[in-house]
Amino acid sequence: PQYASNGLDVWTMMNQVAASVNAVNLGQGYMSYPPKEFITRAAQSALEENTHNQYAPPRGRPGLLEQVGIHFANRLSRPIDASTELSIHAGANEALLSVFTAFLEHGKGQEVILMEPAFDQYTPNIIMSGGKPVYVPLRVQSADKDPSKDVISSHDWKLDMDELEAAITENTRIIVVNTPHNPVGKVFTREELEQIGAIAARHNLLILADEVYEHLTFGVEHISIATLPGMWERTVTVGSAGKMFGVTGWRVGWSVGPAELIQPTLSAHTRIVFTSNTPLQEGVASAFKQARENDFLNVQCQEYERRRNRLMAIFDDVGLPYVVPDGAYYMLVNAAAIKIPSDYDFPAFIEERGANFKLVYFFIKEFGVSGIPPTEFYSEPHKHLANDYIRFAFCKTDEGLDEAAKCLQSLK
Amino acid sequence: PQYASNGLDVWTMMNQVAASVNAVNLGQGYMSYPPKEFITRAAQSALEENTHNQYAPPRGRPGLLEQVGIHFANRLSRPIDASTELSIHAGANEALLSVFTAFLEHGKGQEVILMEPAFDQYTPNIIMSGGKPVYVPLRVQSADKDPSKDVISSHDWKLDMDELEAAITENTRIIVVNTPHNPVGKVFTREELEQIGAIAARHNLLILADEVYEHLTFGVEHISIATLPGMWERTVTVGSAGKMFGVTGWRVGWSVGPAELIQPTLSAHTRIVFTSNTPLQEGVASAFKQARENDFLNVQCQEYERRRNRLMAIFDDVGLPYVVPDGAYYMLVNAAAIKIPSDYDFPAFIEERGANFKLVYFFIKEFGVSGIPPTEFYSEPHKHLANDYIRFAFCKTDEGLDEAAKCLQSLK
Ligand SMILES: CSCCC(=O)C(=O)O
Ligand SMILES: CSCCC(=O)C(=O)O
Repeated sequence: PQYASNGLDVWTMMNQVAASVNAVNLGQGYMSYPPKEFITRAAQSALEENTHNQYAPPRGRPGLLEQVGIHFANRLSRPIDASTELSIHAGANEALLSVFTAFLEHGKGQEVILMEPAFDQYTPNIIMSGGKPVYVPLRVQSADKDPSKDVISSHDWKLDMDELEAAITENTRIIVVNTPHNPVGKVFTREELEQIGAIAARHNLLILADEVYEHLTFGVEHISIATLPGMWERTVTVGSAGKMFGVTGWRVGWSVGPAELIQPTLSAHTRIVFTSNTPLQEGVASAFKQARENDFLNVQCQEYERRRNRLMAIFDDVGLPYVVPDGAYYMLVNAAAIKIPSDYDFPAFIEERGANFKLVYFFIKEFGVSGIPPTEFYSEPHKHLANDYIRFAFCKTDEGLDEAAKCLQSLK
Repeated sequence: PQYASNGLDVWTMMNQVAASVNAVNLGQGYMSYPPKEFITRAAQSALEENTHNQYAPPRGRPGLLEQVGIHFANRLSRPIDASTELSIHAGANEALLSVFTAFLEHGKGQEVILMEPAFDQYTPNIIMSGGKPVYVPLRVQSADKDPSKDVISSHDWKLDMDELEAAITENTRIIVVNTPHNPVGKVFTREELEQIGAIAARHNLLILADEVYEHLTFGVEHISIATLPGMWERTVTVGSAGKMFGVTGWRVGWSVGPAELIQPTLSAHTRIVFTSNTPLQEGVASAFKQARENDFLNVQCQEYERRRNRLMAIFDDVGLPYVVPDGAYYMLVNAAAIKIPSDYDFPAFIEERGANFKLVYFFIKEFGVSGIPPTEFYSEPHKHLANDYIRFAFCKTDEGLDEAAKCLQSLK
């Protein structure tokens, strides 16, 4: 079966639209600046060693397992046994697929709860694994503010816990919890995570914690749901070297959790890709070690906060309201004020994807700044919730952001 | 569900057994020598460019698509449209899984024909994709020779075409054709491929051509089944940069075929891993270009032939017969002459895997040279066909082979 409409995923499609008008690309979440030199040097050195050019064990290179183990021992405040509680993957995406493959079966009608907006790969990954996604949308509760006119907080995107619990059936197996959240930028609070955790415990569900942006929060604390009482046992947490070290093309990710959950995850991983690439695993291992010495993750987080503030200032300036991201590197901008001429000509591949794709396409063509249509992160019945939004990424150079600012002047 | 018994694949298990007695490792098919410098240099240079550290398009980096396109245009004697007839994968294994995912459905009882011995990842990959593997063994027809006493040809391992056709049902969708063959070293002849192709055409089946060892044949010609009349339309051919350039840890592979077959393969790939790693894709692109200039593939093939001849001489010397490999870098040795003391103590994880695992384990422990138990490449009813064999890899240094020769002297 096919798992991408027309074979074209939203990322490739929007990169092509952006390139067609040479737009400033604030779409897909990759860095438009180089990784720090110590990171690429680490990979270059790894290539000098023959063993680092050959198959890694499916679980991962020992040096990287050790480093990821140290990272999570700190992050989760518990000792991590790198030989049983960790696995390295070919990117966090393959870690997600491995978890779904490990814990879902075909033909059983097993369900997975996703909170919308939900990263676009979850749904096909669940379906490929035999599961059925069940969607619970985050709902904006911004009191006296109008999101089409006023800046709101990402914390105003709230999960209705009754709605979550009502979505659970006897077939539910997994809840996916993505914090910091792509694309909302919401960082779930301890209280929210406790409530989700209590529901998971009550119904004996696994939690798949997608925390690939764990290192990027702005003035709020990232909390791993696995650290809450009773949660370690039921949680697999997924992370990404690409996101953490600014090398999205390296395809090195990881899963961490109790041995009973990681063992089947590793077994699925072994059959899906056998192993992640060795030289870049070694590069990441060495980068982790150096990052601890040069305080890289904190310094980097400050850089991202500066970029976020710059992007907010740009939209303040042109008068389009947005959702203030507390974490990750995306910002939802409310573009309800943009009026599309009724005779505007859209290509068929955009027209067929609905109002939000048309808005984003129009925006890219008219203003030369590209974003992603967040309706791609919604199931059909809930797409209307995102029709006014465009997602912009701020993992981009100052020059890129300045250029975007210039392009957007005509909005004033 | 779990896809590896005890979570331990045969590769990891046998590497651990080998390491436990510090054996000369002729087990898993990775190179024990460094890649040529032009290859690692190419990857090191790629790391200098920021775009080469970020997401590649799911189909692959344009430069690599171009190079793989040139390679196959030569190999298949037809023009290749790199923008529709190719996809880059996270290793050939992920290409195989993408093909099965694309063309099989769950709950339909669809079948895939495998020829035994069959590379151990095929079966779980087919099952994960909803298919049912159906096994047709190669059968030794060595006339007046006794494989437990005489050296035989890999060409003596024959597919009975009537048995193949009898295995096809109305549910059959795909035939997997692996040439050069792992672990037999058989290179299928034009006549054999024509017969297989005729059967595929008669029953309107897809062919998945696993040709990851296409560049390694010794005195015989590799023929791609896709080049036979009428076969291109029904064939996806899979290849591997790891095998071709001696960098099994890079995880860069590819699929080639008509756009109608590659498009669903790419769509599955996009959902399985999103994309293969970028820097090593760029490294392979540059390596391909240089390899064409310095005649690398031919020179390398001669090196492998020399290593093969050395390994054959070693077993000639100690008097264990084998199957002469015409291609790839494995050799099946018939160890029926090795007698295991009846009170020999095997660990449970070996005991439970049967006679062949015991033979290989005993051989590693007693002689300090490790191999792979080929029964792992067989379905239960056919495992007995391989009980006497051990697979040794010759993608190993001269020093390693010399060391193995020394270890095996006690066999005399
Ligand atoms: C599969 S594209 C991933 C990039 C990303 O995480 C994003 O842009 O949302
Ligand atoms: C999945 S291990 C692959 C190595 C190999 O091809 C082999 O040794 O057969």
